[in-house]
Amino acid sequence: MLLGRVTGTVVASQKEPLMEGLTFLLIRQLAVDNTEANSYVVAVDSVGAGVGEVVMYASGSSARQTSVTQNKPCDAVVMAIVDTWEIDGETVYRK
Amino acid sequence: MLLGRVTGTVVASQKEPLMEGLTFLLIRQLAVDNTEANSYVVAVDSVGAGVGEVVMYASGSSARQTSVTQNKPCDAVVMAIVDTWEIDGETVYRK
Amino acid sequence: MLLGRVTGTVVASQKEPLMEGLTFLLIRQLAVDNTEANSYVVAVDSVGAGVGEVVMYASGSSARQTSVTQNKPCDAVVMAIVDTWEIDGETVYRK
Amino acid sequence: MLLGRVTGTVVASQKEPLMEGLTFLLIRQLAVDNTEANSYVVAVDSVGAGVGEVVMYASGSSARQTSVTQNKPCDAVVMAIVDTWEIDGETVYRK
Amino acid sequence: MLLGRVTGTVVASQKEPLMEGLTFLLIRQLAVDNTEANSYVVAVDSVGAGVGEVVMYASGSSARQTSVTQNKPCDAVVMAIVDTWEIDGETVYRK
Repeated sequence: MLLGRVTGTVVASQKEPLMEGLTFLLIRQLAVDNTEANSYVVAVDSVGAGVGEVVMYASGSSARQTSVTQNKPCDAVVMAIVDTWEIDGETVYRK
Repeated sequence: MLLGRVTGTVVASQKEPLMEGLTFLLIRQLAVDNTEANSYVVAVDSVGAGVGEVVMYASGSSARQTSVTQNKPCDAVVMAIVDTWEIDGETVYRK
Repeated sequence: MLLGRVTGTVVASQKEPLMEGLTFLLIRQLAVDNTEANSYVVAVDSVGAGVGEVVMYASGSSARQTSVTQNKPCDAVVMAIVDTWEIDGETVYRK
Repeated sequence: MLLGRVTGTVVASQKEPLMEGLTFLLIRQLAVDNTEANSYVVAVDSVGAGVGEVVMYASGSSARQTSVTQNKPCDAVVMAIVDTWEIDGETVYRK
Repeated sequence: MLLGRVTGTVVASQKEPLMEGLTFLLIRQLAVDNTEANSYVVAVDSVGAGVGEVVMYASGSSARQTSVTQNKPCDAVVMAIVDTWEIDGETVYRK
């Protein structure tokens, strides 16, 4: 999984029918020091994450292992909202 | 998923029989600020996307989870045409 | 899928028995403007592609969705020989 | 698999129910000369690895092939604690 | 698949039980001109490859399609020992 910040949303009315009703979150990847990396991904929300929140997302076939994404053409899913992370005993991020 | 702009098409008459009848779209990846990134992918169309449109595409095994790509040697599929996306409350792209 | 030029072949007599009889093509990735990129892949041939030809290849689990690669430890397959591709209405490559 | 050093942990109370009870380790990737690379991954622990330890982790669908990660939205798993590694006959790392 | 040179081995006594008895090879990726690239992978051996040998390895779920790696948390497998490879009719490497 990677860490990211939810920075926005994507709206797409014309889409593969299996994707109806899902929320597409625009996630900017975070480096371990909590700075924003240059890469992003559009991930389906499975935990009720909102814009501004720090999350973890899973990619590839693992993104289809939630109840909302199963058997769907989805290659990235937000599967957790992060409370804190620590590096070498120091808290880098706290919600 | 990633955002991209359909910039062209690829024609291939000699191909794996399972790929017959599919449309191959040449997608240039878009950065979150709607500028064109340097990378591209050839993706199968599942939503009737045309040249010039901004789309979302799924990669890997997730690209086989549409009715047109199931069980086929396809590792990228256009699964939505994008209407808008927002970053931090500002609209970055509108169709 | 990505575009590539078949630049050579790899011979390996000592291999996983499931790979017996397959042809290993050395593919150099092409950029959308038909210049050679720096990266390569060794892909199994499923369409009779020869050295010099421009092809499309699929990666990952999708590379196992052809009759010659099914259930084999193969992560890249040439699944089409490219006739032409166009960008913004201009032909970039013609066989 | 890749080599990494466990540098911390991630806590996420609001998450996909399937992820309950798992430990999220923040892994910094190691180069072959045992220096820290710039990239990281959050991996689920399957072997009792602690902060500071050098481990191997598997990514993608292979990360779901352990008893703790099966059928879960997990794309990286620590599946071994490294004792030593050698390059060209020289020990680069010893626990 | 990618080309690599076996440059060493990794020993890990504490590991996911499914990985017992497997050999972990440290593979340095080779460029098409047979120079060593900067990236590496730890791959399970399925063909009896030794240190110094040039091999092909498969990644992702395809790495689980050999008898020794099936259903195991393994994302890279050495599935062939390379005899030769050619580019544009010239032999680049011969065992």
